[in-house]
Amino acid sequence: MKTVYITRRETFNAAHKLWREDWSEEKNWEVFGKCSNKNWHGHNFSIYVTVKGKPHEDTGFVINLKELSALLKELVVEPLDHKNLNLDVPFLKGMLASTENMVIQIWDIIKEPIAKAGGELVKIKLVETENNFVEYYGGDEPY
Amino acid sequence: MKTVYITRRETFNAAHKLWREDWSEEKNWEVFGKCSNKNWHGHNFSIYVTVKGKPHEDTGFVINLKELSALLKELVVEPLDHKNLNLDVPFLKGMLASTENMVIQIWDIIKEPIAKAGGELVKIKLVETENNFVEYYGGDEPY
Amino acid sequence: MKTVYITRRETFNAAHKLWREDWSEEKNWEVFGKCSNKNWHGHNFSIYVTVKGKPHEDTGFVINLKELSALLKELVVEPLDHKNLNLDVPFLKGMLASTENMVIQIWDIIKEPIAKAGGELVKIKLVETENNFVEYYGGDEPY
Amino acid sequence: MKTVYITRRETFNAAHKLWREDWSEEKNWEVFGKCSNKNWHGHNFSIYVTVKGKPHEDTGFVINLKELSALLKELVVEPLDHKNLNLDVPFLKGMLASTENMVIQIWDIIKEPIAKAGGELVKIKLVETENNFVEYYGGDEPY
Amino acid sequence: MKTVYITRRETFNAAHKLWREDWSEEKNWEVFGKCSNKNWHGHNFSIYVTVKGKPHEDTGFVINLKELSALLKELVVEPLDHKNLNLDVPFLKGMLASTENMVIQIWDIIKEPIAKAGGELVKIKLVETENNFVEYYGGDEPY
Amino acid sequence: MKTVYITRRETFNAAHKLWREDWSEEKNWEVFGKCSNKNWHGHNFSIYVTVKGKPHEDTGFVINLKELSALLKELVVEPLDHKNLNLDVPFLKGMLASTENMVIQIWDIIKEPIAKAGGELVKIKLVETENNFVEYYGGDEPY
Repeated sequence: MKTVYITRRETFNAAHKLWREDWSEEKNWEVFGKCSNKNWHGHNFSIYVTVKGKPHEDTGFVINLKELSALLKELVVEPLDHKNLNLDVPFLKGMLASTENMVIQIWDIIKEPIAKAGGELVKIKLVETENNFVEYYGGDEPY
Repeated sequence: MKTVYITRRETFNAAHKLWREDWSEEKNWEVFGKCSNKNWHGHNFSIYVTVKGKPHEDTGFVINLKELSALLKELVVEPLDHKNLNLDVPFLKGMLASTENMVIQIWDIIKEPIAKAGGELVKIKLVETENNFVEYYGGDEPY
Repeated sequence: MKTVYITRRETFNAAHKLWREDWSEEKNWEVFGKCSNKNWHGHNFSIYVTVKGKPHEDTGFVINLKELSALLKELVVEPLDHKNLNLDVPFLKGMLASTENMVIQIWDIIKEPIAKAGGELVKIKLVETENNFVEYYGGDEPY
Repeated sequence: MKTVYITRRETFNAAHKLWREDWSEEKNWEVFGKCSNKNWHGHNFSIYVTVKGKPHEDTGFVINLKELSALLKELVVEPLDHKNLNLDVPFLKGMLASTENMVIQIWDIIKEPIAKAGGELVKIKLVETENNFVEYYGGDEPY
Repeated sequence: MKTVYITRRETFNAAHKLWREDWSEEKNWEVFGKCSNKNWHGHNFSIYVTVKGKPHEDTGFVINLKELSALLKELVVEPLDHKNLNLDVPFLKGMLASTENMVIQIWDIIKEPIAKAGGELVKIKLVETENNFVEYYGGDEPY
Repeated sequence: MKTVYITRRETFNAAHKLWREDWSEEKNWEVFGKCSNKNWHGHNFSIYVTVKGKPHEDTGFVINLKELSALLKELVVEPLDHKNLNLDVPFLKGMLASTENMVIQIWDIIKEPIAKAGGELVKIKLVETENNFVEYYGGDEPY
């Protein structure tokens, strides 16, 4: 049996803004543009979580997607869906709610639970709009 | 020349909540569920605007899409993109920011300008998520 | 308040075949082609259910999508998802499992429950592949 | 048995320009903008053809999609795919290659053959980009 | 000339179930959930096959996509489309019809023919639903 | 802070043909098929440009997407959109307008400007149709 990569998509809808309290409104606008609107804006986010491993002989699965989906719904969708990323999410408190920072935080939250479920987390892709997305490999640089 | 329907899509990303000040938090939750989160949530909206007419003999166009797009960017995208639908949008003030209410208001705003540009507005489709959208024919009921 | 159309998408994955017991294998092949494979094939179906009405003044909703979604999950997704459309679905028994027949049957099943939830069912769209779909207006012909 | 609408999608990739020989380059640019580039540009087109009818009792079909697809491949895809819409397509000769004009011409070409195959053509949708499409009901105005 | 990766998508629609004969119905349900429905279910599969190489100086191609597509239609689409993955496909006999097992088997079938056509197979992506897909690099682990 | 990959999509619509002047029409047809139509054909292209880096502490950004988008619009969209890839684009002159050659040329054009904007270009994906795309890592082979 050889290594296969399996990916599960989940979605959530959230508000955020890109804004630094220690910057003036002008400076915020200059750097973050319309994303700095003080009254927030929002997105439909899609998150793709990739786990690698060798298919188990008795199931043909790298990881049971029912379990992976349940885990992601509990640890990612529940705390982020229909929330304000700046105000409502403990693990994003005190940092800029950029997609870059989001994937780094989500990685740390789901890595161990996925390992306990028998999988190895290797990639998170977070899609903010049809034009923008980020990918994270735990800090590794495959290319 | 016979009647053809032409549609232009524009997109905007916005925050909102479904919330009535004159209801308790419990009542808001009961009716609006997670959409009532007091700190807002948000979406990537797509709006499809349909204009009907007979193609002009000298252009082959029902309406010039450059003009229609410019008009929609000014009247719809500019006031809604990266905004809070409850707080930042004059034409949505004082009403629930449901997609139903949004299409009714947008209709009234763009109908005349499209008529001046030589087109007849006949339909607006507003997509909130891959699972939810509304359509509006100015109150008419084609089916 | 004016009439707005609201649509909810749900999805299900199912097996079926197009096959008549009273026809020979050759006749089945001639008419239904590869869809007649006796060991079944399958699809990821998407169903779009459209309800029309005037937005309620106290909610801004034509119908509460939470309720519509729950109703569709119970009456459509539960009986069809991960099922064999020819063998497992009481309301499709004894008929060809074409998308045309499916929308007619589903209409009859969800029309009354949607009416009880305060909405008027006006359209079902059932997507079988990226190349094929059917639409049904309860037998009416808007065009 | 009641009326159902069935739709088949086909695709083709073609070059065109919006250009009038009897207009100056400036006038062409003013009206058609970048679509007037004299060396052409192009698109991936998707065409959705809708046929209505009552499902046949012996097949459950409004029309056999194998036949509809074969007919569209012969009459629409073959003459348009990987072609120059202004230069290579007899039925578009002498007219502006706008999507509006295209759907009107395609309608006249496929209406009778679809009728002979037992279906009634009621709608053509022609998608030029993710932001632009036209719809045609044979000149009728359902809304 | 430098290495470029080129990908071709093909699609097929098939039935399958996740089921072990040597397990009880309860055990199958416990592990495979609704995917274990004994009467099968199905999906619209999309397969993306990636070949790498240096563009040929005389064609600008890594591999001729006409040839790659013809090869995939013969070796993958023909045996899988409108088939039952458990019953109808020789190369999947005797194993669980999981997407993980499918990509491993498909790899072994197309690797040599692609090499004979002058390309180097480096990746297969198999999409089962909008929420689930697997990727396979021949057992290698690029990340 | 750890390395994150961020991607921006831009789109352009263009005409091209695959054709060698030093080959006969028959030879061109044999190799390039319908892509060799002498009067051109065209596509809606999507280009995905990936930049890697560590998020800046003061912005949470790998690179400011406003800047990346502006740069891509100037260097890629402007010269390619609504153009003839064989005739109108200086950096594609004298070569076959295959997607493989396009990504190699685009890489060389945007690599330095992206570096000056503080990012490291690591991947370009160019999508020609829903069935075909190429990916380029600057000649590197991550897998």
